[in-house]
Amino acid sequence: MNVPKQATPDHPIHELVAKRWSPYAFEDRPVSDSDLRSIFEAARWAASSYNEQPWAYIVATKAQPQEFELLLSCLVEGNQGWAKAAPVLAIGCTNLRFSRNGKPNSAALHDLGLASATLTVEASSRGIFVHQMIGILPEKAREIYHIPEGVQPLTGLAFGYAADPKALPDAFRDRDLAPRTRKSLTEFVFSGEFGATSNIVK
Amino acid sequence: MNVPKQATPDHPIHELVAKRWSPYAFEDRPVSDSDLRSIFEAARWAASSYNEQPWAYIVATKAQPQEFELLLSCLVEGNQGWAKAAPVLAIGCTNLRFSRNGKPNSAALHDLGLASATLTVEASSRGIFVHQMIGILPEKAREIYHIPEGVQPLTGLAFGYAADPKALPDAFRDRDLAPRTRKSLTEFVFSGEFGATSNIVK
Repeated sequence: MNVPKQATPDHPIHELVAKRWSPYAFEDRPVSDSDLRSIFEAARWAASSYNEQPWAYIVATKAQPQEFELLLSCLVEGNQGWAKAAPVLAIGCTNLRFSRNGKPNSAALHDLGLASATLTVEASSRGIFVHQMIGILPEKAREIYHIPEGVQPLTGLAFGYAADPKALPDAFRDRDLAPRTRKSLTEFVFSGEFGATSNIVK
Repeated sequence: MNVPKQATPDHPIHELVAKRWSPYAFEDRPVSDSDLRSIFEAARWAASSYNEQPWAYIVATKAQPQEFELLLSCLVEGNQGWAKAAPVLAIGCTNLRFSRNGKPNSAALHDLGLASATLTVEASSRGIFVHQMIGILPEKAREIYHIPEGVQPLTGLAFGYAADPKALPDAFRDRDLAPRTRKSLTEFVFSGEFGATSNIVK
């Protein structure tokens, strides 16, 4: 399925970055366990503050329908509407304290982001798409999976193969078909003063 | 300079993920503006919650020594010791509130992580290394760069070409030469229950 959502960069970027996007439509096709192992292996090698690796992922696939339904129920309703089509779902969690000394890890949320972006690169290299969402029900996830205090369930992740959006309900289809938009580089690369565009990107 | 810090994955991962690491030793060699543009362009195309793109980077290169010294002074002393050798430094910032409605963005720190991991992929594809650090002086950065309230300076980033670590002071050299270690996949990929290893990675 060829969906024209490739990035339209102003400067050359690697194809693994350019072809990543967050689909709403997924093919009815499983992701192999071998692909999933490599995807999480990539997360394993992400950078983290003091090499704490604070991230954890709770994963469910359609091979186990009850487990899948349970994980789906931890997403907000609006996300359930499209994410139920994905063959694999996960909840991204992060340990807010250092395991070695119990002190707060100010990089905990950030480093979950590093890991999730890194696993997305691995997925992209295998033709698999990842749609992340902040719209989850963290307290429900905590209850269902007995997530301990101090560990924050933060994100949902849907994994799968992008499908033709025409089968989607209108609202999702429009989002899937809309062109990708981004701020200009001049709006977020600064030098000398916050808000002052760096000469590097002028 | 060939430093043997390639990841030693248990499952196959893309070379751009495997060859990324965080060096302490940098060659005395600039990163071109054209490479930097592509590196930040990659960040631009990262995913973000509601496409908010909350990240911003304040950048300084050795082409402007005073600007570079100022940015270096925003790192904790321990990081200044090695980061002063890198040709490019940056402070990663994130907007804690949605620009459209001023409400808190619970993905703000996480999404800075997504952007920084994505720019690191682009850097890796160009033979450039990124060493991120949480050890910065955020209030000093806020003062120097007039970072507005509601925007959090969170990370430092050093960019450059990895050098032979033998010229480093002992403590950094040992870190640069130490093998890379990671938790096992079984320690962070769960199913059914937090802490229960998923069958996918068993």
